[in-house]
Amino acid sequence: MPDERKRFECDSLKRFAKAVFEKKGLSPDKAADVAEVMLAADGLGIESHGIQRIGMYMTGMKIGRIKPMAEITVVKETPVSALLDNNDGMGQPAAIKAMKMAIDKARKTGVGIVTVRNSNHFGIGGYYSMMAAKEGLFGCSMTNSEAMVVPTFGRHPMLGTNPIAVTMPASPTYFHFDVSTSVVPAGKIEVYARNKKPLPDGWAVDPDGKVTNDPQVFLDIRKNKTDGGLLPLGGYGMETSGHKGYAFSMIVELMTAVFSGGNTSNHVREVANVDKCCHMFQAIDYGIFGDRKAIEDHFSKYMDEIRQSPKAAGQTRICCQGDIEAEVAKRIEADGIPIHDTVLAEFESIGRELGIDSKSILAEKKR
Amino acid sequence: MPDERKRFECDSLKRFAKAVFEKKGLSPDKAADVAEVMLAADGLGIESHGIQRIGMYMTGMKIGRIKPMAEITVVKETPVSALLDNNDGMGQPAAIKAMKMAIDKARKTGVGIVTVRNSNHFGIGGYYSMMAAKEGLFGCSMTNSEAMVVPTFGRHPMLGTNPIAVTMPASPTYFHFDVSTSVVPAGKIEVYARNKKPLPDGWAVDPDGKVTNDPQVFLDIRKNKTDGGLLPLGGYGMETSGHKGYAFSMIVELMTAVFSGGNTSNHVREVANVDKCCHMFQAIDYGIFGDRKAIEDHFSKYMDEIRQSPKAAGQTRICCQGDIEAEVAKRIEADGIPIHDTVLAEFESIGRELGIDSKSILAEKKR
Repeated sequence: MPDERKRFECDSLKRFAKAVFEKKGLSPDKAADVAEVMLAADGLGIESHGIQRIGMYMTGMKIGRIKPMAEITVVKETPVSALLDNNDGMGQPAAIKAMKMAIDKARKTGVGIVTVRNSNHFGIGGYYSMMAAKEGLFGCSMTNSEAMVVPTFGRHPMLGTNPIAVTMPASPTYFHFDVSTSVVPAGKIEVYARNKKPLPDGWAVDPDGKVTNDPQVFLDIRKNKTDGGLLPLGGYGMETSGHKGYAFSMIVELMTAVFSGGNTSNHVREVANVDKCCHMFQAIDYGIFGDRKAIEDHFSKYMDEIRQSPKAAGQTRICCQGDIEAEVAKRIEADGIPIHDTVLAEFESIGRELGIDSKSILAEKKR
Repeated sequence: MPDERKRFECDSLKRFAKAVFEKKGLSPDKAADVAEVMLAADGLGIESHGIQRIGMYMTGMKIGRIKPMAEITVVKETPVSALLDNNDGMGQPAAIKAMKMAIDKARKTGVGIVTVRNSNHFGIGGYYSMMAAKEGLFGCSMTNSEAMVVPTFGRHPMLGTNPIAVTMPASPTYFHFDVSTSVVPAGKIEVYARNKKPLPDGWAVDPDGKVTNDPQVFLDIRKNKTDGGLLPLGGYGMETSGHKGYAFSMIVELMTAVFSGGNTSNHVREVANVDKCCHMFQAIDYGIFGDRKAIEDHFSKYMDEIRQSPKAAGQTRICCQGDIEAEVAKRIEADGIPIHDTVLAEFESIGRELGIDSKSILAEKKR
């Protein structure tokens, strides 16, 4: 089925998003940060975290979960670290500030680690790890989130999907990944539900903690806030090592919520109008270990050996982390960002409410 | 089937191991390091990495893979980091030196990261992360290793089993895990082969890169050095997110081999008499983010919430990382370390060769 959606200039969408968030009370800089991270997601084809999320953020502000005027406080700082309190502000400006601080510290000392507490959804973690890589540094970001993952042998969601993003300079493209530590993110199950496809084993458990293949069961769990949820990477129990995904997810809780003194995922969004998730940002200047160029070349050579290595039967390609992302980004840059008509209608309605003429701002991509 | 093996005092086994490595040319300190890490594995019930491995290390020295007299060189050092060259020495003394340096740096600056290249098998990674935790720090260790894991959609082993170990102070026991980034380590398949049990899906691929359930296929691959091998955590392809395990495994290659300028796993042990694997050790003084005691208490409380959370149908217990390890360690401390008669005979023979009377050193545990 060809994609019949209209396609727009990225910059015009960014201008619209920035205008919306300024009207909601964010400073121009912070509004620009939010727009930038949202459109970066669209630029990578990660629409779930792109500009279509604007409505969800508006709701977050309406119910008081997001405080648009909140200031970011530096609670504690050392030459290699900082702890920020986002005081319930939007996640993106705090995350950008935190990664900028981590980058600055890494330049001066070799390493920077900055944690953030009392925050909100920060968009795609990969944006921040990429910020470091664009400065010639190793970058890593983590965030916890509303609990929807059960621990191994549990049935109550105690962990967020807790993504880890890492980016490292290399040729011809950055080494880059941004993945949840659950076997899949919630959005993937929603797609299966829409397509009425049964879930593979090891993705989700029902309210009794038993593996379910019915995507609707997961949607009902989310709607009714019952037990059940996603499984950690590795699936159910220990046979295929679900306990390892559980351990990696705990590392995210440790480095985000525990190091920052903020909410672990089981307390994030306990009530609808309070989020208070936590993030962690790390930058490393790998020049502390040797010649920077030699290190990048070494990694690029290894990745090329992997790409060129023999393929499994029936497979024609082995990718390194970031290969697909780079191709998708290139295609979307050429084609423009696709927006569904229903989302356009929502933009119009939001614009009307705020006195912004979305139609005059949004520019269709000329092809 | 009850375990009928004789059980020995840990200290007596440690004395024997130390004597063996001293005779082979290691300094008394280094021989003590090797003995210490080996017996720590036995103390946790990880026999594959315990004193029974002594014969394998002896072989490694005989064929020249391990150079017992090698010195550890500090190649580069900053206040937050160091790069060591192990010059083909035993892994354990270099790993202990590296983690000690990381701990010292973390005490002074908040963070210490030390990489090691041109090394050999270092035993259990968890020993080193625990070193940091015993000093009240967050500890992490990683190592790459001989390639036996295929990348997603590949059939040629390009990655090691690449374990990650993390330890963090908490009550009542340390948060602690030490897991390979492959779905299982090779040793687990050997156990299935011995018991003639079919492998679960998603553990290993045959020489064509297709999923195999026959443990013997994997053993043949290892023996004949053909294509095929273990799958990354998450299993085959992308449906159950094998690409995530592949990404985490790449992080280990990056932080060990690439940062240190050493061999990536596909070049480790390319010939039998050269290993040259690489390690990474990290310590963080989380006091840089807030009150240390408050951070530990916060983590302990969260882990307790997880332990107490509702269990999946048919399950009676949810563990946190380190719970089982602490129980096993306690039991082995009380009962002594079990050694198979065939291993005892090997010790006798090694002792005879080196002029060490194993029987007079080894003391059976009095119960």
